[in-house]
Order: sequence, then structure tokens, then C-alpha cells
Amino acid sequence: MSDSNSQNDEFLEPKRKECKIEHKDENGVSDSQLELKDFVLEKILNSSTNRKTVCVLGKFKDKSGVAIVFLEKNAFREEDLDNKGYFSVNTELKKFFQNDIYGNFECFPPASINGVKTTIIYPATDKHIAKFSQQQVHIVLETPELYDKLTLPHLEKEQFNLQWVYNILEGTSEQDRIVHDNKCEREGFVLLPDLKWDGVTTETLYLLAIVRQRGIKSLRDLDETHLPLLRRIRDEGKKKILEKYNVAGSQLRIYLHYQPSFYHLHVHFTYLKHEAPGIYAEKSHLLDTVIDNIEMIGDYYKKATLPFTIREMDNIFNIYETNGHVQRIKQENIELIDK
Amino acid sequence: MSDSNSQNDEFLEPKRKECKIEHKDENGVSDSQLELKDFVLEKILNSSTNRKTVCVLGKFKDKSGVAIVFLEKNAFREEDLDNKGYFSVNTELKKFFQNDIYGNFECFPPASINGVKTTIIYPATDKHIAKFSQQQVHIVLETPELYDKLTLPHLEKEQFNLQWVYNILEGTSEQDRIVHDNKCEREGFVLLPDLKWDGVTTETLYLLAIVRQRGIKSLRDLDETHLPLLRRIRDEGKKKILEKYNVAGSQLRIYLHYQPSFYHLHVHFTYLKHEAPGIYAEKSHLLDTVIDNIEMIGDYYKKATLPFTIREMDNIFNIYETNGHVQRIKQENIELIDK
Repeated sequence: MSDSNSQNDEFLEPKRKECKIEHKDENGVSDSQLELKDFVLEKILNSSTNRKTVCVLGKFKDKSGVAIVFLEKNAFREEDLDNKGYFSVNTELKKFFQNDIYGNFECFPPASINGVKTTIIYPATDKHIAKFSQQQVHIVLETPELYDKLTLPHLEKEQFNLQWVYNILEGTSEQDRIVHDNKCEREGFVLLPDLKWDGVTTETLYLLAIVRQRGIKSLRDLDETHLPLLRRIRDEGKKKILEKYNVAGSQLRIYLHYQPSFYHLHVHFTYLKHEAPGIYAEKSHLLDTVIDNIEMIGDYYKKATLPFTIREMDNIFNIYETNGHVQRIKQENIELIDK
Repeated sequence: MSDSNSQNDEFLEPKRKECKIEHKDENGVSDSQLELKDFVLEKILNSSTNRKTVCVLGKFKDKSGVAIVFLEKNAFREEDLDNKGYFSVNTELKKFFQNDIYGNFECFPPASINGVKTTIIYPATDKHIAKFSQQQVHIVLETPELYDKLTLPHLEKEQFNLQWVYNILEGTSEQDRIVHDNKCEREGFVLLPDLKWDGVTTETLYLLAIVRQRGIKSLRDLDETHLPLLRRIRDEGKKKILEKYNVAGSQLRIYLHYQPSFYHLHVHFTYLKHEAPGIYAEKSHLLDTVIDNIEMIGDYYKKATLPFTIREMDNIFNIYETNGHVQRIKQENIELIDK
């Protein structure tokens, strides 16, 4: 169970089965001998100055095929913040300027405590390259008419497989992970940790509530008949999370995605301070606001224009593009922001 | 002009004037001799594993007073991604595991290309410590009644100074920065780069539209009489940004904050891929959704319950706490997530 369909996910797990490739090169040299000094960069596929990541495409000298190297600076570890680590004689300090009590510097800690998470995919396929390349993202305004005409037929055609959801609801998978189970067929739901969460660390708390009622695809399908269900998810969800994880309801971000990554109604619970993927205003709708909107207008979500984001690689982009609702951006070479 | 009142801002510029302190210690040693090896950590004030930052409190050996040290891993620079930098013999590669074409490693580049941005505040005051400490954040649900009873009297009492806004509108400040100026008193607005933006880099594009009409404090004051103004901001704003910066309207996130950081109506324009501060669902309201809501219900924003986030250090927190709408969290020592 993973709900990571977000522009924010920088390192999506590739589908391993699809890409199985012989991993010896023409000289019969095993990948285990890959060395960074042999890597020749061809192109920067993506980068984030915010998260300190970069993803590059290139080749290894004397090896056939291309490789993707994904680098991410490690976060600080508490045990290195002492006089053997960052605050040691081995950390050089270079001053930029000092003004009154404020000083700006760059420091250079010993290499051994300043590692970089490194992922190498070799040989990489075109699918890998597309997956890791920066994608142009657009906002589309989905009126109720466009939902009926373009989005809904697309959803029906794609026929997303929801068997994994039914397995959870029917008790055949992930039962040991369930935090709360309200078995009412109409207003019940299952609450369990999202796969992205370790189930322990409060700072990154992330649970999903999956409704038992089938056939509610998304926000678009909600009306006043669903108010008891929505209020129950909010209230029981908060109560259980307080009991089990000791996090107050006022410190939870409770929301629905539009578009969701799977079309069986579910609600996200994340710790308010956690910058989880997909919590931006163009993608997330707070459950409290959803309830309030439906209380004001019973068929709010049948009448509203709902914005959503699409990447140019998404199938639905083509549908909106063909119908003249969004235009592709002329792709140029992507360069690092700092250049 | 800065609009950075966000839980996301990790390094707010302190108010320099307020904190002027003699910067020689009791032995008359100048701060310029601060050395990291002399720093003794007392407490981690804040950290982000996402952005690779940590902010610590401590002392310098043989110096009086406390110091704050803020560390942030540098983003990758394009010029280091070659066979003299990351991909050189000097970068050690340690393997975690290799599975088929996927390899997970940690690499240790030479210290000289793997610097850490370092800011030292010494001596630091209690105000600095409060400012840099992790704050508990809560969501409050503001009904129209609570707005009238608690929020509005607070705003009126605080009497935020808007002179800098009027200076821009009246042409006495920042005139060289203005990108677009519609001088209509009722439906006009000024569009200019936000102070957080360098005005050049598309990837971090950030502009503000400030309305000419005075007295519209926030989202709460909007109704159907403002629709022409709101549509004009959206349409002219998109047009000017396309002309001047070559960014398509479908690639812009156009939104209002609630609560805003100043109470004179303004609209944010950011590049959709830019993870700007304060773009989360609990804080940002897309202008298209605002317009759509008012089109459906003229007085939507007088009737809606609007969620907003508050930090325990905010004055308004005390007001909501005293009235029983939110509870303070028992503060414990903050530890790094990775521990």
C-alpha cells in the first residue's frame, strides 16, 4: 500500500520486475565493480536545492549502456554533533562575513561524517530515464463538465486494480498493521500506517483511513449522504491516533488528495509538522473543509471546479492536451539552479 | 517586503537592530576568533532531515554567554559533478547492497567540495533561542463566530503597520521593482517580485499582487463584489508573468494565505514546481478555488469555517487557548529524527 503519486516524490521505487536486465557488461565485468571515478556525466535529469539531491545520467568508462546516479546529502546525525565530529579540529571553518553578533561561514567537516546517499541504476532503460527526469507539471481546472467528459471516461478505461484495497478490507492482507477497524459496511473504515511511515517516529507520522463502502471513487463522488462517514473518520481517527501515538488531533493534517493515487475513497492523516509528499494546496483538501463545504452545499463536489496537477508524462495529460485545456512546455535541457 | 510567516521557514532573518550586543567577551576576545572545535553542544533546537539542516545551542570554551550554530548541507553544484569532484578517485564508495540493476551505496566526497553552510550567532539572546527553537504547531478551526469573537479583535488590537504597503501603492518605495501596475482604485493592483525571490531564477519564481483597494484585510472579507478584482488579478497576473518571465499560467500556483502575514489583501504567484514556504493545504487557498466558491455562494467566506495554523509562540495562540479551542503540548527535549 503506497500513496506516493506526487510531484514531490524524488525517488520512486522503480518496478523491479519490469526491468530485469542482464547485469554483466560485454566484457563480463560484474556491476559490483562500478566505480564513481569511471562515471562520465552526460546530463542532469533532476535536482532539488531544497532537499539537496541530484539525479544524473551518464556512462561508465569501457562499459556499454547508460547509468543513472542519484545523490542525496545525508541528514545530520546527532552523534556527529560533538568535538569528534562537526565541532572538531578536523572541521575547517571559512568565514564569509561577520556583522555584529551574526557570522556567516562555510565549514568543511571530515569526509567520513559527511556522506552522500548514492543509488546507481546500471544499466538503465528509457523507462528509468523518463521516471527520474524532471517532469513539467501543470494545473488543470476540472469543471463538473470536464470531469464527466474527460476524467471519468479515463478512469473507467484505466480500470485501476483495487484488489490490494479489498484484501485489507476483507482481512486477507496487512491485518497485523491495522490500528483501528470499524466494521460498519456503510460508515466503517480501516485505519493503518501508510507504507511510507515506519510506524514509530512521531515526526513523520502518516496513516491512511480506507472506507469500507465501495464505489466512492474520490472527492467528486461525495455528497451529504456521506457526512456521517466523513465525521466518523475524522473523530475516530483522531481519537485512535491520540490513544496509540499520543499525538493531539490539533497536530494532525487530515486530508484527501485530488486526484488520488487510487480510486477508492481514503483519507490521509499526517503529523502537521511533517512535510509529507503531496500536501500542497493544489493537491490536498482538508477533511474539515470538505465537511464544511458539503454542510453548506450538499452537492458542492458535483458543482465545484476542482484544480488538479498533472505531469506531462501522465496519460490523462494527453487527454486534456488533445481537448485544448493545457499546453505542453517546450522541453529544454534542465540545469542546476545554482549554476 | 517579506511574507515569510510560515512554519516552513527555517532560517528567518532576525531583527538585527533589536539585538545589538557588545561582541567581545569578558576577556576582550573578538568573535572573529570563534572556532568550531571550541563549541560545546547543549541542545538541539531544531532540525530537518528533509532539508538537511540542524540548529544547535551551546557555548564556546572559555567564553561567556551562549551561541546558536545553524548548519545546512550545501546543495549540489553542477561544476562538482565531474571527474575532479564527485566522480573522482578521491570519492570513496561504500556498498550497502546490490540487487539486479539497483545498487545502494554511501559515498564520501572530498571535504573541499562538500561544505556546510554555517551561521553562528554569538552571543545569542533568549529571543534568538525562541526564534530558532522548534515550535509546536496546531490547526484551529475558525468559525465565523470565532473570527468575530477572537481573531478580529486580536487583529484590531495588534494594529499591524501597513505603511510599507502604502509606500509601494503610492509610488514612494520599490518602484523600480514593479512588474505590473493597474492603477484603478477599485480593481487595480501592483505586481512585484517577493523579497524572497532573486527576480531571475524561473525555478524559484515568486511574485506578489497587492490590491489598491484598502480595507480588505484577508480572505474573510471577500464576497461577490470582489469577483472582478480577483479575476483581474488572476488574468492580468498570468499574462504579465508569461510576457516577462516566459512561464505559462498553467505552471503557476496562485493563492492566498490564511492567516496572511499582513492584513492588506495580496495574492501569491509561485512556480508550480517550487516548494515555496507556506504552500500547504492548511495555509494556502488557490485563487481559482476562492473565485469558484464565491461564484457558488456570494458570502462563502463569511459563512465558511476556515482552518488555520498557529504556533504556540504566536500571540493569537494564547487567545484561542484561553477560550478552550486548542491545548498546549507538554514540551519535551527535541531530538533528531535519525537518532
